[in-house]
Amino acid sequence: MTDAASAFAPRTDLETIEGGTAFSPKFDADGLIVAVATSAQTGEVLMVGHMNREALARTIASGDAWFWSRSRKRLWRKGEESGNTFRLAEVRIDCDQDAILMKVRVAGAGVACHRGYRSCFYRAVPIGSPPTPTLALVFDKAMPRHAGG
Amino acid sequence: MTDAASAFAPRTDLETIEGGTAFSPKFDADGLIVAVATSAQTGEVLMVGHMNREALARTIASGDAWFWSRSRKRLWRKGEESGNTFRLAEVRIDCDQDAILMKVRVAGAGVACHRGYRSCFYRAVPIGSPPTPTLALVFDKAMPRHAGG
Repeated sequence: MTDAASAFAPRTDLETIEGGTAFSPKFDADGLIVAVATSAQTGEVLMVGHMNREALARTIASGDAWFWSRSRKRLWRKGEESGNTFRLAEVRIDCDQDAILMKVRVAGAGVACHRGYRSCFYRAVPIGSPPTPTLALVFDKAMPRHAGG
Repeated sequence: MTDAASAFAPRTDLETIEGGTAFSPKFDADGLIVAVATSAQTGEVLMVGHMNREALARTIASGDAWFWSRSRKRLWRKGEESGNTFRLAEVRIDCDQDAILMKVRVAGAGVACHRGYRSCFYRAVPIGSPPTPTLALVFDKAMPRHAGG
């Protein structure tokens, strides 16, 4: 168990946060920070999730990606059921420290999405016209679907 | 001006949302959805921002990335001041439709971050030990800093 409450540096002035080396992640009103996972091999964006302080502390300590499930209201280690764990190659933080970027190697079947795709972003949104309720998403036919995510 | 209030399909059941072609983006309690921008050329994650309905509708209609600034509480077109606009090559939505992925070409100096870096993720977080308040971020020395972002 990590001591997540005191794991990070305090938020100070913007110049220090953006231009310094103190790790002062910003958690929102719900205590969460956005975390983007990309493939360490291809750079492809695999999924976007949220972490609370505990999930972020566990991720950094263990080298495995932990998230906070907003729907199930609990911590979860990515792949704990599917076997498709995210093993971290690198973690980065953005300028104002309110977003996490992880470069990961996906274990198991290499399927990041619970829908069986290697990435959660398996559908494109047509652009160039104002969106309407009848706009149709386009499945990426080059992204094969596996049995389980 | 787009009619953002009626631009998207309603949220229905999860199977339709995840397995269908209706575009039913999920906005959070603040009316926002996370949007990740990657380079269309290299795949590198450039920045993470938020969109409200109007920003998402404008983005899709115009092919330029619009965001909602939580700090300034206003819509902004990326690059409107710096010239580093994000021209969209592709937009994707994730499985449960609560995150947007954009593949963009950065105009101007090719600098996505207001700090002058090509990506907002110019610092790495050391991993493998429990984080403490004295943990020091590591600047990516391979990412040159330009005069303005």
